[in-house]
Amino acid sequence: MTTPATLVALLHGPDQPGLVARVSGWIFERGGNILHADQHRDMESGVFFQRVEWVPAQGSASADSAAFHAFAASLGMHARVAASAQRPRVAIFVSKFDHCFHDLVLRWRAGEFACDLVAVVSNHADLAPAAATYGLPFHVIPVTAADKPAAEARQLALLRELRVDLVIMARYMQVLSGDFLSGCGCPVINIHHSFLPAFAGGKPYHQAAARGVKLIGATAHYATAILDDGPIIQQDVARVTHRHDVEDLIRKGRDLEKSVLAQAVRWHLENRVLVYGHKTVVFD
Amino acid sequence: MTTPATLVALLHGPDQPGLVARVSGWIFERGGNILHADQHRDMESGVFFQRVEWVPAQGSASADSAAFHAFAASLGMHARVAASAQRPRVAIFVSKFDHCFHDLVLRWRAGEFACDLVAVVSNHADLAPAAATYGLPFHVIPVTAADKPAAEARQLALLRELRVDLVIMARYMQVLSGDFLSGCGCPVINIHHSFLPAFAGGKPYHQAAARGVKLIGATAHYATAILDDGPIIQQDVARVTHRHDVEDLIRKGRDLEKSVLAQAVRWHLENRVLVYGHKTVVFD
Amino acid sequence: MTTPATLVALLHGPDQPGLVARVSGWIFERGGNILHADQHRDMESGVFFQRVEWVPAQGSASADSAAFHAFAASLGMHARVAASAQRPRVAIFVSKFDHCFHDLVLRWRAGEFACDLVAVVSNHADLAPAAATYGLPFHVIPVTAADKPAAEARQLALLRELRVDLVIMARYMQVLSGDFLSGCGCPVINIHHSFLPAFAGGKPYHQAAARGVKLIGATAHYATAILDDGPIIQQDVARVTHRHDVEDLIRKGRDLEKSVLAQAVRWHLENRVLVYGHKTVVFD
Amino acid sequence: MTTPATLVALLHGPDQPGLVARVSGWIFERGGNILHADQHRDMESGVFFQRVEWVPAQGSASADSAAFHAFAASLGMHARVAASAQRPRVAIFVSKFDHCFHDLVLRWRAGEFACDLVAVVSNHADLAPAAATYGLPFHVIPVTAADKPAAEARQLALLRELRVDLVIMARYMQVLSGDFLSGCGCPVINIHHSFLPAFAGGKPYHQAAARGVKLIGATAHYATAILDDGPIIQQDVARVTHRHDVEDLIRKGRDLEKSVLAQAVRWHLENRVLVYGHKTVVFD
Repeated sequence: MTTPATLVALLHGPDQPGLVARVSGWIFERGGNILHADQHRDMESGVFFQRVEWVPAQGSASADSAAFHAFAASLGMHARVAASAQRPRVAIFVSKFDHCFHDLVLRWRAGEFACDLVAVVSNHADLAPAAATYGLPFHVIPVTAADKPAAEARQLALLRELRVDLVIMARYMQVLSGDFLSGCGCPVINIHHSFLPAFAGGKPYHQAAARGVKLIGATAHYATAILDDGPIIQQDVARVTHRHDVEDLIRKGRDLEKSVLAQAVRWHLENRVLVYGHKTVVFD
Repeated sequence: MTTPATLVALLHGPDQPGLVARVSGWIFERGGNILHADQHRDMESGVFFQRVEWVPAQGSASADSAAFHAFAASLGMHARVAASAQRPRVAIFVSKFDHCFHDLVLRWRAGEFACDLVAVVSNHADLAPAAATYGLPFHVIPVTAADKPAAEARQLALLRELRVDLVIMARYMQVLSGDFLSGCGCPVINIHHSFLPAFAGGKPYHQAAARGVKLIGATAHYATAILDDGPIIQQDVARVTHRHDVEDLIRKGRDLEKSVLAQAVRWHLENRVLVYGHKTVVFD
Repeated sequence: MTTPATLVALLHGPDQPGLVARVSGWIFERGGNILHADQHRDMESGVFFQRVEWVPAQGSASADSAAFHAFAASLGMHARVAASAQRPRVAIFVSKFDHCFHDLVLRWRAGEFACDLVAVVSNHADLAPAAATYGLPFHVIPVTAADKPAAEARQLALLRELRVDLVIMARYMQVLSGDFLSGCGCPVINIHHSFLPAFAGGKPYHQAAARGVKLIGATAHYATAILDDGPIIQQDVARVTHRHDVEDLIRKGRDLEKSVLAQAVRWHLENRVLVYGHKTVVFD
Repeated sequence: MTTPATLVALLHGPDQPGLVARVSGWIFERGGNILHADQHRDMESGVFFQRVEWVPAQGSASADSAAFHAFAASLGMHARVAASAQRPRVAIFVSKFDHCFHDLVLRWRAGEFACDLVAVVSNHADLAPAAATYGLPFHVIPVTAADKPAAEARQLALLRELRVDLVIMARYMQVLSGDFLSGCGCPVINIHHSFLPAFAGGKPYHQAAARGVKLIGATAHYATAILDDGPIIQQDVARVTHRHDVEDLIRKGRDLEKSVLAQAVRWHLENRVLVYGHKTVVFD
């Protein structure tokens, strides 16, 4: 069956009686029909969170979207509204590892991600042929310690030119600076190959092998100026034993990285992730 | 913090625009405050399902509960309303295996189940001392092939006398008849020691070992007149290898049975399980 | 580090005292060095199973391989010996679904499978471009109900011509006949998209949705003349809820199918799987 | 079936050709029959590890045990030999939380642990009635900051008097000093309620909630003088969401703590755990 064009609102703010009734009443009065609504109350902090998805009355999607922001503000809530008809424009950043890249693109071709892939950006040329196979534009922007600010400026210019709504770091092996993150104007999802906060920083599989853990993990999070510290979207683990050397951890880790990153991207694109402070609320 | 007394409604019926707004509006108008609301639409069958939990206005819990049924009926919906102030009365049926029994009672003592344990019923006397340790009334009602109808009549009389709201079959090794199930007037949750529909019937661990499966499972479901066929509430699995003989499967299975049954009972007691046809909707 | 060329023996037969000592003594006397040895006793049936991997003395790999068979026979054991220097020749059978195909080929290119991919065989032309991208020979052999024996004869001729050691059914949507399986002279690994023995046969995700299970599964097994009944190599499951419709089960199932099939193929290629009766012993 | 009395040797030392043959040959020559043998090579460090379990010739168990140590030393290996006929004597240390305590004792009564429970030691009297129910001797040894050395001296005297072979810290809420650990002369297994090395130290569930992780964990490890840093035996995780507050994490964590600690204790008692440096080799 064809899914009709919908609006999704993510809102949060101080809890007060009647919020669910007011939001659903507002939508109903304007002729909309709610498909899904999910809300959460943080009892400790007194904050209300909601994700609501509805089919607006014929022809009123863009008016409703604008009006909802004003309505939410009148309730003291902060809102973000997305229209399913507007597909987000996504750039994938890669280096030389290709497993997350292939996984994301194949899922996208299979219809798992409602977005347009508008660019593949890399500090190396290695994955250019793979991108060409998929018909995806590939941009090489080399990065060295000396010219990193200049390289990031080129990346930012490209993202602006392409009006990118989301950057995915698919094992991109450079740390993006705080300036880049504040300048790019859109969320950046990173995949870290450990169960954060354990083993932040470099070579986490080597760290895990040295510590003798019995599970290895992967963590997808929004990148922030502090390395490997951003709000966590998804995590998963896999069992390892003394029989697995570092090479095995890396191989097993690839599967974790692929599935955890894909799940986080899917949730983000479906407007299911609400960042609140240092954490996320995922309406799955 | 103390949780205030709440009402929980589980409702379902034909989908129609505005249901979320109407239900939340009804609660709001009567001075109630929604704590949680979760809904689901079965797109294929056009059925709407909702669980809504709210704090009613002071002193109006029992009036609201009655009124909600009429309100739901006016929407063409079927509703069930539970008040957190009324703790369900639960009977546990056991035979000789004691792992699920101990697990349920220890969780209950730890505060994981909001219910009163009013009886332990068994076809054997073996667990009488264990029940005594916990201070729980224990009733031996022997069952033989010849006198099963009479035994079930005694069980039913006991359940009625104790006004039982839920029966838990904690590895009770007798099949309850269709007559018993229709006569007892309350739900019966059973734990089957396989991943249903695989290995229904007797000796499922032996069946699993013979088939050479790589995972064993457990399934908690509402008992119906057809053996091992009722609506499934929860399932889980554990990995096994050729090194595990039937004794090992039984040992590993005990852990599955305990956790799966406990989770199903908890969800049921929190009014999170809505039976619809042959399936369940679990608002977790 | 470079792994030296090794021999792997899989043997089984009636248990008797001293088997471990005899096998390891035989290898030691011929100048071999055991890298891994793993054994299992089925206490009930009195059968001994062993996988032993060793570095033979310089230049004696092929002589040792032949001599080991005779040695095992002298112990009343059945043995299979594989040399790591001889890469198995593998054919992948596909239809139109491409997720397992891409997954297998990308893992193969990443070095996860020690084999040569010598052919992709399909009853449809759809995946020819994808195979071309990877530089893999693609053979279209259409199959209709009327000409199935002729089509299978063409498949068998191709497998013989290419000296294929393993066939992987990567969501190949035709049932291979008993004649084909006995005629092809090599193992055939199939991926079934359910947790067998539940939901054998067609449309297992629809069956799972209809039954309301809380976990869906996938099973990799050796194909036999009885549909979905062969010895199981690997299984895994994923959690689903009432929110997942059949389309979601199919999407989530793709991930299971990929990882379960890949794990089974990897174990097979590493000579870790010993078929015994209706079951497998997997020395992982 | 009755399992015959067996010996289990755990040995490790510099790798050299022929070790498997020599060990199995030694056992065979003395009339023993190997039931299980499992070995591992750490390729990087060149260390060989083995667990071998055998039925010695009638009446020679204790002679074989002594002789094996000398034999292993002649190979430059370090060995530990345990006889199944000698049940380890175990003390459980508890404070006020009782979930791990009940779980361990109920498993022990169900025959899952081949050991004698000789003492329950606590810094509080709270669990005395529970221990009495099980017929277990209970020792209250209060601990304050001021008198901790004296309290530990009393604990050590008790362990020596009871000839304890293993101490299990079942959510014992005191840090055992380095002096205690070196003085007690036996291994100490602790359960930490996080996925180490994440969230070491106090209140790990609060730390996890603050960081917004999507999985919580538990870790069983041998206690060492450095807090939460000893060799890890077993770990597991459970999924959590924003809906789970700290109380929920604590509740869900109890299940993890129980199963992870029980698995670690079982492996230890079956002589499957070999400590090597900062890590463990678990022959499962």
